[in-house]
Amino acid sequence: MNRAQTDIEATRERLVEIATALLEERGSPALTMQELAIRAGMSPATVYRYFEDKDALLEALAEYWFRPKVAAMEEVVASDLPARRKMYEFFARRFTMMRKVYQADPVAFQSYIDIGNEHFEQVRSYVDLADHYLGVIIGEAMGEGFFAGLGVDETISLVNQMVAPYCAIGTMTMFMERLTEEKLARIIDAVFDGLSAADRGAKGVTDLRAA
Amino acid sequence: MNRAQTDIEATRERLVEIATALLEERGSPALTMQELAIRAGMSPATVYRYFEDKDALLEALAEYWFRPKVAAMEEVVASDLPARRKMYEFFARRFTMMRKVYQADPVAFQSYIDIGNEHFEQVRSYVDLADHYLGVIIGEAMGEGFFAGLGVDETISLVNQMVAPYCAIGTMTMFMERLTEEKLARIIDAVFDGLSAADRGAKGVTDLRAA
Repeated sequence: MNRAQTDIEATRERLVEIATALLEERGSPALTMQELAIRAGMSPATVYRYFEDKDALLEALAEYWFRPKVAAMEEVVASDLPARRKMYEFFARRFTMMRKVYQADPVAFQSYIDIGNEHFEQVRSYVDLADHYLGVIIGEAMGEGFFAGLGVDETISLVNQMVAPYCAIGTMTMFMERLTEEKLARIIDAVFDGLSAADRGAKGVTDLRAA
Repeated sequence: MNRAQTDIEATRERLVEIATALLEERGSPALTMQELAIRAGMSPATVYRYFEDKDALLEALAEYWFRPKVAAMEEVVASDLPARRKMYEFFARRFTMMRKVYQADPVAFQSYIDIGNEHFEQVRSYVDLADHYLGVIIGEAMGEGFFAGLGVDETISLVNQMVAPYCAIGTMTMFMERLTEEKLARIIDAVFDGLSAADRGAKGVTDLRAA
């Protein structure tokens, strides 16, 4: 990157930080290019030189929000831990990051949920990336003998459902006061020790009979 | 119940059905005592003879929504099935009821979520009742040797978290397209075969090391 590019990147990053503060303080509806320009002490035309439209700004905001989470996922996947520990860390590290935001300011946290729901197209690629990394961990677990008879995609779906309160941000708020790392560890242990394609009788074939 | 009481109950039930239709067609903000009176062809004063305020109407609406779900839970708990099958049926029956409403009209389904979020005080006793029945099933499972080392309340919390997409209505909509009875059965099997107080290594004590 040459000097001019570095300057552009630094200003973009600063604008994203200002947009983040605006979102946290005043909520998703307040986040407009106009408001961002006022906060940044720039003309709107100048802001548009850095982000050609609001979608470009939202894309940069999503990148900024997910950056530490992607770094955590990549570090976990690259580690030499057993698959079970990897899967715990994979969810626990992102959960504790999100809980920190929630605990600092639940209203600000809700603003992130709102803007993510309103602009899911900016979020989808990160959801897909998380599923990809989860699939890598599941593949390693299968190599260690877990999830007998299940396919990788099926297991990704089952695991995402079983840990939804620790992972899906909208679900997390509903459960937050009851979420702990200890419970997450018990759930991951149950995933490893209990999840397989074997039909062990939960969904029986006999009719339900009243006693 | 004497004749007069029976008539009162019948009119209350009819008003609840009209309120339900109003909610499903026009959403939570449209559900007012005034609108209900217009739809029912009554004066507002007459409606207020059946429901003294909107809270009383909402309480009756909640009772109407939860009635078949409570009946399903009670039938399952009273059955002579093994605990594992009971727990599957306990969640599957209510899930399929809710999915039916969702599939018939996702917007109407969202109106139920909205009104439940807005008036959670009318919902809480049903959540507590479901936890009570879940606790009964968990107690039976413990009698069969499952959930070694865990307490009943701790297990209730863990199970609710692990099946959240099939149970917590706000979470359900986010996952709906990927929810199936087969996956629920696999999750319940994992609950029974994998959930205990044993530390099997998900939350390790060693530091995470990069490879």
